Amino acid sequence: MRELLVVKSGGPAAFVEWQAAFAAVAPGLELALWGDPALDPARITHALVWDPEPGALARLPALEVIFGAGAGVDAIIADAELPRHIPLVRMGVEGAAQRMGEYVAWAALGLLRDQRRLAIAQAASRWDYFEPENTAPERVVGIMGLGVMGTRAATMLQGLGFGVVGWSRTEKFVPGVRSFVGDAELAAFLAESDILVVLLPATEATRGLIAAPLLACAKPGAGLILAGRGTQAVIPDILAALDAGQLSGAVIDVFDPEPLAADSPVWAHPKVTVTPHCASLPSRRERAAYVAEVMARHRRGEALPNLYDPLRGY
Amino acid sequence: MRELLVVKSGGPAAFVEWQAAFAAVAPGLELALWGDPALDPARITHALVWDPEPGALARLPALEVIFGAGAGVDAIIADAELPRHIPLVRMGVEGAAQRMGEYVAWAALGLLRDQRRLAIAQAASRWDYFEPENTAPERVVGIMGLGVMGTRAATMLQGLGFGVVGWSRTEKFVPGVRSFVGDAELAAFLAESDILVVLLPATEATRGLIAAPLLACAKPGAGLILAGRGTQAVIPDILAALDAGQLSGAVIDVFDPEPLAADSPVWAHPKVTVTPHCASLPSRRERAAYVAEVMARHRRGEALPNLYDPLRGY
Ligand SMILES: NC(=O)c1ccc[n+]([C@@H]2O[C@H](COP(=O)([O-])OP(=O)(O)OC[C@H]3O[C@@H](n4cnc5c(N)ncnc54)[C@H](OP(=O)(O)O)[C@@H]3O)[C@@H](O)[C@H]2O)c1
Ligand SMILES: NC(=O)c1ccc[n+]([C@@H]2O[C@H](COP(=O)([O-])OP(=O)(O)OC[C@H]3O[C@@H](n4cnc5c(N)ncnc54)[C@H](OP(=O)(O)O)[C@@H]3O)[C@@H](O)[C@H]2O)c1
Repeated sequence: MRELLVVKSGGPAAFVEWQAAFAAVAPGLELALWGDPALDPARITHALVWDPEPGALARLPALEVIFGAGAGVDAIIADAELPRHIPLVRMGVEGAAQRMGEYVAWAALGLLRDQRRLAIAQAASRWDYFEPENTAPERVVGIMGLGVMGTRAATMLQGLGFGVVGWSRTEKFVPGVRSFVGDAELAAFLAESDILVVLLPATEATRGLIAAPLLACAKPGAGLILAGRGTQAVIPDILAALDAGQLSGAVIDVFDPEPLAADSPVWAHPKVTVTPHCASLPSRRERAAYVAEVMARHRRGEALPNLYDPLRGY
Repeated sequence: MRELLVVKSGGPAAFVEWQAAFAAVAPGLELALWGDPALDPARITHALVWDPEPGALARLPALEVIFGAGAGVDAIIADAELPRHIPLVRMGVEGAAQRMGEYVAWAALGLLRDQRRLAIAQAASRWDYFEPENTAPERVVGIMGLGVMGTRAATMLQGLGFGVVGWSRTEKFVPGVRSFVGDAELAAFLAESDILVVLLPATEATRGLIAAPLLACAKPGAGLILAGRGTQAVIPDILAALDAGQLSGAVIDVFDPEPLAADSPVWAHPKVTVTPHCASLPSRRERAAYVAEVMARHRRGEALPNLYDPLRGY
């Protein structure tokens, strides 16, 4: 059967860009826009989706592979009718970890020298000299989620002089990084961490994790970087911890829902840097190349990489 | 003769902090505030100064050592009557290079993902998603001034994945960093550099260097980080290069004069991040410890480190 890839990521405007991206890396591939009324669902063999309508994927009889358009597939597995027998491939673009590492390094250094205060002073044309308290070798960064992204971030942070510890479901062996495992070691991990970096997947276990109880166990004056998923954090609790001085500053890239509402108090908070879920989205060209490569493997009958695992939940 | 250190750095308010800093590291040392009318100039043996009034140091008959309060001593050597036979020690605090490296790393990563655009969007409560064009491994940072600061910055940038080249008066051997030397190789150096970092001392040779002629030789769309001295740059030329797209963005820490005037067009420029000469000032405590250590060496008749060299001009 001839391959046909349907795309639901970014809407009709982005579809034109997806077409250009695939034209460059897989010229023969036929593409269709999700929901196109002229499209026969029985012809769709592959789907590249971010947030499909619940039940929609189950109505594609010839579907062979589902691709998540980003690293997290939480908006896809939220579909109760998701056809579980069809492989779901998470986006695993080379360079995505590098981008995330750069974001985390930028955010951690920005917390050290209070980039938010610098930005507020600039906006007011005010020369606001102050002395940053610490340098990187005096701070330990605690990375929650030591996967592809977290591991690269750990290495880049170490190169800047930071100490690094990590927290994950299973034990990890990253040079120079002490590994803390599971709920039992969470408090010990928090006690070591001057700056917390959240790079966890969105699962039931991580939902609402970054909230008052956890923040109360953090080191007083800790910094916080949220770059996993918005559902992992309770924003009012974070703002309260900042106002109380329990947290000294935060850099937040992910929200629930997105985009962050224009009237949210987060925007104007003097201790929060907001970024628009831009920490590590690879370009469409890079993602198209990844999809085309995995489709080729599938055609040759090879094992697929980076599969969603329902037992782990991510 | 009993040692007496006079301080001119930050004025009377800062003097109290200097007293506390020296009390912690050199409890017995007698300190005096510059210009104190009750002070007998003939008793002053050491001076810690940032910008002494011209001629004033020449009128201290017992002066043995002059300490610059920062890494650059340009405001001291501007004094035509400076007693040239008295050693002038530049501040060489451990950790100052680390701080500068952190600043440069933060600024370079901030240029990659347009932190100024992110800050402007946050100030307007606007979710302004855009894709950064490049990651660090795709960019070469060109460091002008490969001294204590520049060398550390080079290493930290390499750890983030950046390519690095350097430009200096004499050839340098930093692992992985191609060394370009003097005016003859400036154009070749510029042709390699996607982001320029200025970490030069303020000398006659570097005055006004970062101006239209040099910027015209930069790579189109280059980024610029100014962290040496304000006198090295011609701000209107930089703004013109930004407006023309010849430069894509700038992070500027040093101005002439400082503080930057409230009505300067730099503050509101959409491509410039302004910081208030905070890239790398060590704390008073760290600087006091350095001064106390060098005074002890001097007392023991040992060679003094980090001396100003009038032949080099810095
Ligand atoms: N902001 C952005 O632009 C952006 C971009 C890309 C990704 N992300 C987010 O970043 C997340 C991480 O990406 P990745 O590629 O690094 O994922 P990954 O390789 O799958 O790693 C996930 C890590 O989280 C740990 N983890 C999972 N559940 C846990 C739990 N309940 N308790 C403790 N640790 C747990 C895993 O530990 P085990 O290995 O022991 O299971 C693993 O170390 C993604 O899921 C996505 O949500 C955000
Ligand atoms: N913004 C801040 O907070 C801050 C803080 C500290 C320092 N600074 C500035 O940073 C500067 C550098 O500090 P540092 O400790 O790294 O100084 P440094 O160790 O003395 O190094 C200076 C470097 O500049 C090079 N250089 C000097 N004149 C040059 C010329 N005419 N052409 C090309 N290269 C030239 C030198 O090359 P050679 O070795 O070949 O002579 C050397 O590599 C200081 O002078 C100060 O102005 C700023």
